[in-house]
Parts: sequence; structure tokens; C-alpha cells
Amino acid sequence: MAKIIDLNCDMGESFGVYKYGSDEEIITEITSANIACGWHGGDPMVMDFTVGLCKTHGVNPGAHPGFPDLVGFGRRNMQIAPRELRADIIYQVGALQAFAHSHGLKLTHVKPHGNFYNMAAQDEEMALSIAQAVKDVNKDLILVGLSGSLLVRTGEKIGLAVAHEVFADRGYLPNGVLVPRTEPGAIIETTEEAVSRMVSLLENGYFAANDGSPLYLKADTICLHGDTPNAAAYARAIRLMLEENGVRIAPMPEVLGL
Amino acid sequence: MAKIIDLNCDMGESFGVYKYGSDEEIITEITSANIACGWHGGDPMVMDFTVGLCKTHGVNPGAHPGFPDLVGFGRRNMQIAPRELRADIIYQVGALQAFAHSHGLKLTHVKPHGNFYNMAAQDEEMALSIAQAVKDVNKDLILVGLSGSLLVRTGEKIGLAVAHEVFADRGYLPNGVLVPRTEPGAIIETTEEAVSRMVSLLENGYFAANDGSPLYLKADTICLHGDTPNAAAYARAIRLMLEENGVRIAPMPEVLGL
Amino acid sequence: MAKIIDLNCDMGESFGVYKYGSDEEIITEITSANIACGWHGGDPMVMDFTVGLCKTHGVNPGAHPGFPDLVGFGRRNMQIAPRELRADIIYQVGALQAFAHSHGLKLTHVKPHGNFYNMAAQDEEMALSIAQAVKDVNKDLILVGLSGSLLVRTGEKIGLAVAHEVFADRGYLPNGVLVPRTEPGAIIETTEEAVSRMVSLLENGYFAANDGSPLYLKADTICLHGDTPNAAAYARAIRLMLEENGVRIAPMPEVLGL
Amino acid sequence: MAKIIDLNCDMGESFGVYKYGSDEEIITEITSANIACGWHGGDPMVMDFTVGLCKTHGVNPGAHPGFPDLVGFGRRNMQIAPRELRADIIYQVGALQAFAHSHGLKLTHVKPHGNFYNMAAQDEEMALSIAQAVKDVNKDLILVGLSGSLLVRTGEKIGLAVAHEVFADRGYLPNGVLVPRTEPGAIIETTEEAVSRMVSLLENGYFAANDGSPLYLKADTICLHGDTPNAAAYARAIRLMLEENGVRIAPMPEVLGL
Repeated sequence: MAKIIDLNCDMGESFGVYKYGSDEEIITEITSANIACGWHGGDPMVMDFTVGLCKTHGVNPGAHPGFPDLVGFGRRNMQIAPRELRADIIYQVGALQAFAHSHGLKLTHVKPHGNFYNMAAQDEEMALSIAQAVKDVNKDLILVGLSGSLLVRTGEKIGLAVAHEVFADRGYLPNGVLVPRTEPGAIIETTEEAVSRMVSLLENGYFAANDGSPLYLKADTICLHGDTPNAAAYARAIRLMLEENGVRIAPMPEVLGL
Repeated sequence: MAKIIDLNCDMGESFGVYKYGSDEEIITEITSANIACGWHGGDPMVMDFTVGLCKTHGVNPGAHPGFPDLVGFGRRNMQIAPRELRADIIYQVGALQAFAHSHGLKLTHVKPHGNFYNMAAQDEEMALSIAQAVKDVNKDLILVGLSGSLLVRTGEKIGLAVAHEVFADRGYLPNGVLVPRTEPGAIIETTEEAVSRMVSLLENGYFAANDGSPLYLKADTICLHGDTPNAAAYARAIRLMLEENGVRIAPMPEVLGL
Repeated sequence: MAKIIDLNCDMGESFGVYKYGSDEEIITEITSANIACGWHGGDPMVMDFTVGLCKTHGVNPGAHPGFPDLVGFGRRNMQIAPRELRADIIYQVGALQAFAHSHGLKLTHVKPHGNFYNMAAQDEEMALSIAQAVKDVNKDLILVGLSGSLLVRTGEKIGLAVAHEVFADRGYLPNGVLVPRTEPGAIIETTEEAVSRMVSLLENGYFAANDGSPLYLKADTICLHGDTPNAAAYARAIRLMLEENGVRIAPMPEVLGL
Repeated sequence: MAKIIDLNCDMGESFGVYKYGSDEEIITEITSANIACGWHGGDPMVMDFTVGLCKTHGVNPGAHPGFPDLVGFGRRNMQIAPRELRADIIYQVGALQAFAHSHGLKLTHVKPHGNFYNMAAQDEEMALSIAQAVKDVNKDLILVGLSGSLLVRTGEKIGLAVAHEVFADRGYLPNGVLVPRTEPGAIIETTEEAVSRMVSLLENGYFAANDGSPLYLKADTICLHGDTPNAAAYARAIRLMLEENGVRIAPMPEVLGL
């Protein structure tokens, strides 16, 4: 297999006087930025700044839309009707797209945030609403979702390019779902192990689920976290060790052969 | 002079369960809809619906961005820095633009709402921030502002197409500013007089200010109100009487010769 | 049985320029007003006005807290942690209480709005969070909930006075839950039937569920709707017919013997 | 003169996942906490936590209401009508008061935030609206404002207890207004000088304005900042040095002889 992968990180989640994440340090390590659109985090000034950061560092900007719930950071489930969900996504992606255009850039992708992401991995109607919204804004946008999930399969079904996302630092159940954070094996402790799992995945097409069985997953992009302590150092280490293991870090469209 | 004019109306200002204006009745009388973008009024579902209404009725959709102040309906002045103002406009216009695209339409214009409109008619830095934001989102958008105001002059200066807006039902001071609502002569009482003023303007290039002196104004589009009782009946009457007086009602780009 | 009952209605749900409901007409027919607290509807000016309306008409003001979701009018379920829910309720009830105090009134009751109400009727942790929050603000507040529901039982358990609420115009399942609006028998069509059901309930302690079986319910207060066409006329008719049938309309504390 | 003073600090300005300030470190150094009420900063969970912090450390809680402008942190002026301003203050103070009650505490004071504070120091109508609102919520609340300003004089005029606030680390113009941050002499550089100015003020009733002339000011409470680097260390130093200079740090009601 071609050992090539995109590195993405959620960015632009600061709001007004409130700082969140280490965007300016992590931007140098990634190829794709998922930028908050002002609902679960971010505001117009932050969006403008973050797109500018992408331009400076040659990183592809993408939209990271979330629930209309700033105080809950988009992490609390809300019972939104499919038509509302579609409209909420169009609104947020459109807003970010205008900032990209104002910087002479194009959005490459959309990755739903928080419980948008989690729910869309399991709920067919929700997955379809999100995918359709993305296509309605711009049919060339790549839809990013949990590898093998309903969201990416739905995106493919309606004709979108999709990116299967994997987590280097998280354990997986045999069915491809992340081990819940409350259970043992949820977190891959060392950077070495995280990288060796990714290299196995890129070389062989699988790595070990938490029961030891081989888990076959597509892997187009690895999610790095920007809001943990030492996030930038971790990102740097992952990137370097991937490269040392012969993995090429490349922009999402290139990984997908677009 | 060619007696041709566009008719515009603010629309899509409903929010959630709250209804505002008579959009579905007035849409049949106008050529340009200024659609709220979710900050002073409107929400994603309303934006989607209102753009759909434009498509059905062959009306051009435009953006109507406002202050981040839903409870004050964008009518309360806010001391926003120029860079914030620019970002706020880009955000809102971009969001609406995505809905237009999703319906296969293009936005034709941007008309600032409420105190955005009033302040930009007088404050140079604010006018420039708005005009620049519009250009940054899409250089082909028409900027709509009070006829002869700083806003439209600023728009022209930076290379935007602009539409000079006049109010059929409002009195004017000799300097081209509207008579404040608290003063006599603020409101033109009869539809006949409102129309005769517009016809004079289109034939001769001027009508009478409140002191009787001739006021020379460019007139590309007439603002109709959608949130008054009998708004639709008034709009219909204005339109019919304009047509009876030989005025052709035409889309804004056509009026501007674009 | 003593034929005595309180009449309540949700009020103060207007917001900014947006009008909702017929508060000024209905206020003359009721004894308890459930006033929105600015989250699902209402704003500080509306709250002030509505408490003033209560004072003028001798109606008891109560708080009607809801989800932080104005665009969804508090009707969309949100996955809020119990501690968040408690804090959200304290915040909203406290805000309204200050307006009551500024008018020389005391809040008498709290009735959760929309999906707060529905979820708290079924979810034990949620019911406890709400009841505890009400008690924490003021242990003398009456908690209003669906008759016989988990919410009122939980309120009683922790020592609050509670009011069992019934709906005159809605059908009931044999287990005391409302017939869903999508099913036959959800709506009691005539005012006569609605009143006769209420009179039966107050005289005999039961009325007929949708399968004809007797449904025994406590009934301290009847919910009138303020946001339907002819809401005021309906409220007036219900009130008059109840009085003609020997039912005394009395404030909630009097009905509860407080 | 009695060398006694209160130390206050703005607190509870975090929001959701966003942290702001060093509340848990500074709380040990102060006697009065001005707690954000969810509009310019803070949320119900943060309010509850911060009141709890006050209880644990024996600090008096007060309300710190601000403009409805989270993204601008209440620092952008808004043209709010006096009646709106009054209602906005009642709402916020009422909300916080309920949290205080739930912890078995009473609010002692209200200090307007950001541009509420600045505008009320100069605008008579605004000062009156704020003072009246505070009185309407609870006539025993102390109104805190810039020493000698219109706000405190207005509060006194309508019968409120008031606290004159001074800034240890800021220079003053001869008229008692702070030297703008853009001008030389705005910041008192060393802790020693800051303390010596405060001691002079408490011993002699005056200290030196930026032109060297004696500035006579009442001083009931000193504002400490919680959102600067080393805020806690600075607060500790100020407190220790005041005590070493014979100043007694005491709760606001005691300073005012209430």
C-alpha cells in the first residue's frame, strides 16, 4: 500500500477574549485544518484569523460545523430535525467559505464537530442531512468522518469524495468504534505505539482492535488534538515518527487522488 | 431619462416560531429581496425558505446583514471595530450565499440592515469596512445604500457596482437625508403623492425636499416596507401606479446596466 | 369534593420585535401566569411588562424556564447534565423573581417549559434536578407538572408544594399520559366536552381516558393555551362554563390550601 | 482617617469550556467578588461555582452585570434605551442572587462591568437606570462605581449605599478620571508605588494626580485585576504591603459602616 496520509486538527475554537487550543503551534504540523464556524466555538474574527493562518502555512482549510450550543461546546446532543440540521450545516459552511474566498483560498473539506460527528456516525437520517448539506454548498467538498462509519458511507453514496478518519491515540473496538473513554484501552499511552499502529494500518490495511483481532480500516487522515497539554509537541512527534517510518504526509485531496 | 427602477424589500426576518413581515404576499411585487442572515433576524430555516421563495417568484436574492443583536433587531448602535465589522459582514453574506447556491441562484446584492445602514451612511471607516467586506466575499455583488450616501460612494470608489436607494414614502431634507420620523413631513401620506414623487425623480432627476427645493438624487431601487400593516397592498399599489406612469420595474442588475 | 381550580397560561413568550401569544387578552381569564425567562422565549423587557400585567390584573406570576434554545423555542430535547439543568433553572427563576420583587410581587410557582416539562415527567434524574433547583431558589415555590407525573411526585418527595396540572382540551391514555397529537382522540373538540370532563374530574376525581376507562387524576390547575387562534375566546368560554357548573376559579395557593 | 479598605476583583468570567482569569488563586486575597452574570461572561455553572468559592473563602459575592455581548466581552458600547438597561440589570442581578441564596449567602453589592461602568460614570440617564435597577432588585445592595463618579453620586441620591472604587495600579487625571491606557502615566509600574499611593489616600484623603496636584478621592474599595499574568501574585503583594502599612482589609459593608 502507498504509505501516504493527511494530518488534520480542529482549529479556530477560540471565541472573543477566550483562547482555546494551540493553533499557532500546531498549524505547522498539519495538512488540514477543521475550522469552527461560530456556533460551538469560533467567531468571525477568529475564523478570519485562522483561515489566514492556513494561508501562511500552506494548510488546507475545512469547515468544522457544530450544534448551536456555545456553552456546551457542541458536545451536548440536540434533537434537531433533519431539515434544520441541513440548514445549520449550509449556514456554517457558507460562512467559512466566504472567509476562505476572501483570502484567495478554497475550502477543501467539512468535518462535523462533536455530537454532530458522533450522531452522524450512527443515525442514517442525520448522516444524510449532513452529507446533502455539504453537497448543496459545494459538490467538490470532501466529507470527513469516522473511518467506515455511516457518515462516510452516506457521503460516498450521494457522490461526495470522502475521507476516512482514524485516531492514532485511541483504542478501537473490533467493530471499528472507538473504545469509550471510561473503559480500559481507550487511550494509546505512548507516541511510539500510536505511530506503530498507524504504520501497520498504512502498510497492511489493519491494526489491532482492543481484543487483539485485526481491524481493517481505511485511513485517509489522522486526527490530532489541539486542546490537550503538549498538543503541539505530540503532533510534532507523531509527524516526525510517521515520516521516519516512510509515511508521506500529504494534503487530503492528494491522499484521495483528487 | 429612462424610467426604469428596481423594487426591493427586507425579507426573511422571522425567527424560529416568531413570524415577522408578510414575505409571501410582498414577494410577488418586488424584484429584489434583502434577506436577513440570522443576526438581527432570520435563522437558517428561514433563510432557506426565503431563498426558495425568491426562486419560485423570479426575485433576486440579496444579503441583509445586521448587528449581532437579535433582541434589538439590529437597530441599536454598537461600537464595533472596523475589522470586526468587516468579519461580521463576510460571515453573514457567506452564509446566505451558500443557501442561494443550494437553490441554484446567485446573490445579486448586499444591503446593510438597520444601524449598519444608518451608520455607514455617515461614518467613513464603517462604510469602507462594509464595502470591502462585500468585495472580499464576491466582487460582483451590488452594494445598496442610501442614494448619494457615503456608503454608495465608498462602494464605487473601491470598484463595486452600487445601487442608490430611495424611499417613496419618506420626506427628505435638502441635503438628501431622510426627515427624522419625529419631525413633520417625515411620512408621505398618500400613495398617489409617493408615486408622483418617484415619477418626478425618474423623469427629471429630482423631486422636492421638505423645504420645497429640488433635490437631485440618483434612484436605482425603491425600498418597500414589509413589516407595516397593509404592506402588501401598499406595495401592489405603488407598483401598479408606477407602471401606469410609464415606469418599468426591472431587476437591479438590469437597472444598473450590468 | 371541593370544586375549586386554578387556571394557568404560558405568557411573556414574545422577544424583541417579535410578538407571540395574546397575553393582554388572556390575562383577564386566568389566575396563574407562567412567564418565560428569556431562554426559550421572553426577554428582560417582556418579563418586566408581563409581571406588570400580572400586577394590574391580580394574577400570580410564576416562572416558566426552558432550554437555552431560542430558535427551537425550547421544544428540542437537549442532553443537559443534571448539574447543568439545576443551574439553568436557578438562573432563570432568579431572574424572573427579581422582576416580581421590583413590582412588589412574589413568584408563586415554577412550571418547566416545553421539553423540560416533557422530559421531567419521565426522567427521574431530570425531575430531581428541576425540583431541587426550585427548592434552592425558594422553598416556598409551588412546582407545577403533569398530574401524577414523576416531576410532581419528585417535588413532593423533597418537600415542595406541588400543583397537578390537567389539560381540558387534550385526551388522555389510561396511564395518565396525554394522547400524542398524531393519534385520534388527542384533541377534545368542543368546549362543552372539555368543560364537562373537567367538572367530572373535580366532582368525582376521574374522567374518561381514551379507551373509556375511568382515569383518576389530581387536578389543581388547568392549562390554557395562549398561542392558538381564538385563545382568549376559548379561555373565556372555559372559565364561564366552569363557573356555571359550580367550579370556583381560585389562585393556586388557595387551591392547594397553602 | 481610619485606614480600612475592601479589596474587590471581577470573577466568574469563564464560559463553558473557556477559562478566564485565576479565580481560585485570587479569591484568597480579596473581600469582595464581582461575579459575571452570563451576558458578557460567565454561565450558570460558572456562577454557581464562583458563589461556592465565595462561600468557602468567606468572600462577599456581588453581581457584575454587563452588556448582552459575549463576543465583545461587554466592552463594546451599545446604544441601549434606559428602560432596557434597567431591565437588563434586574435580570442579571436577579439571576446571580438566586445562586447566592442557594448557597445560603446574600449578595452584598453590584458593580457594573466594562462599558456599563464607563458609560454610567458619565451619562446621567444611564447612571440612574442602573442605580434604580439595583434598588428595585434589593434596596440593601451596595452600588460600586468609580470614586466620585456620576454613578456613585446617583446611587447615593436615590438612597443606595455606595462604594467608591479606586485603582491602585492606574494613574489619574486631576479631575479624577483614569489616565487613558494609550497615554503616559496610565499604569503605576511598581507594586511599591501602587501601595504607597493607596496608603497616602487612606491616611491623607488624597494622592497625586498625573500632573502632581493632590487628588482628593473617597476610597472604599480597591479593584484588583484577575485576568493579567501574575494577577494572584500581584494581589497578594498589594494585600501584604497594605497590611504592613497599617491598612486593615475588611468586607465592604464594614468599610461603609453598614
